[in-house]
Amino acid sequence: MHVSLGAQPFCLPLPVLLVGTYDASGRANLATAVYGGICSLQPPSFCVSMSRGSWTHRSIAERGAFSVGLPSRSMAAQADFAGLVSGRQEDKFAALGLTPAAGRHVDAPYAAECPVVLELALTHTRELGSHTLFVGEIMDLKVEREALREDGMPDPARLDILAYAPMAGEYLAMGGFVARAHAVGKTARRNRPEK
Amino acid sequence: MHVSLGAQPFCLPLPVLLVGTYDASGRANLATAVYGGICSLQPPSFCVSMSRGSWTHRSIAERGAFSVGLPSRSMAAQADFAGLVSGRQEDKFAALGLTPAAGRHVDAPYAAECPVVLELALTHTRELGSHTLFVGEIMDLKVEREALREDGMPDPARLDILAYAPMAGEYLAMGGFVARAHAVGKTARRNRPEK
Repeated sequence: MHVSLGAQPFCLPLPVLLVGTYDASGRANLATAVYGGICSLQPPSFCVSMSRGSWTHRSIAERGAFSVGLPSRSMAAQADFAGLVSGRQEDKFAALGLTPAAGRHVDAPYAAECPVVLELALTHTRELGSHTLFVGEIMDLKVEREALREDGMPDPARLDILAYAPMAGEYLAMGGFVARAHAVGKTARRNRPEK
Repeated sequence: MHVSLGAQPFCLPLPVLLVGTYDASGRANLATAVYGGICSLQPPSFCVSMSRGSWTHRSIAERGAFSVGLPSRSMAAQADFAGLVSGRQEDKFAALGLTPAAGRHVDAPYAAECPVVLELALTHTRELGSHTLFVGEIMDLKVEREALREDGMPDPARLDILAYAPMAGEYLAMGGFVARAHAVGKTARRNRPEK
């Protein structure tokens, strides 16, 4: 039985995204966002929605570049701080003891402590009311060496990444393996007629 | 130490989204997507990227409406199936034994078995190469009564929702509570000078 909660923004899980930019003075900044993810495969693209008027919003528009770092569970307090404080007021890398690394492909920094990092070149901007959707082409994916499987794919079990539950306002851990994609569905069809 | 994997689309976690539409003949259809999430707060908006040429892509564009259901862990095989088979070929609700419920606010169906459902009215469409980004205004959020906390918020621990890890191609469970948002960050500042 469903209860209708009205026009509430909800999705579960949301990723926790540490968005890295340089501001107009060239200072490296980090801001936490939970509205974003992959939005196209060809070209490989990632979108993130930033609140209008935020320091990072201005920096993405000015520089045409940003990074996204995925923090590990141990970085929950740092990720939360980066969403509470504006880069206009404070050097968040310094305040948090995080290391600003320069992107190799785009004009944006990232926190070297994040186990996953994407470098993004801005390709589209769309105003959506309170937020602006920025789409970036993925120029590079970096993953902590220890988190790669033998086939070279990022292993979610070794990444120990953080997730977010809106409305409840909780950071969550990821759970374990449930099923293999493009495989488990082959068993799902019910009452299939004999041929 | 990061390893550069090139221009790969990655994010962790991704949500598992069962996108519900009516096709031109009025038949209810479901398709699984993992590229999507909240994209604005005011108006509350949700985006989903669908592969061009997919049956659901056509239906969203034609009807200007869609739903998003979040499947529980027990629905992993059904969610995977809905991503493997096209609605052009098969009635997926029937094949999976799922119940098509009519949206109250928009012209789109949803699977009544999903513990979370959003009803969405299409507001923006953006071509992004292989995928089209559809933005919908959230007209209603429905949550299983048993998954609500005492304060009326959806409780991630009771929802037992499914997540997705790209590249590895794994469905994952969600883990437990790590920290409270807008709170734990207040402890994160290092070496704060005495005032």
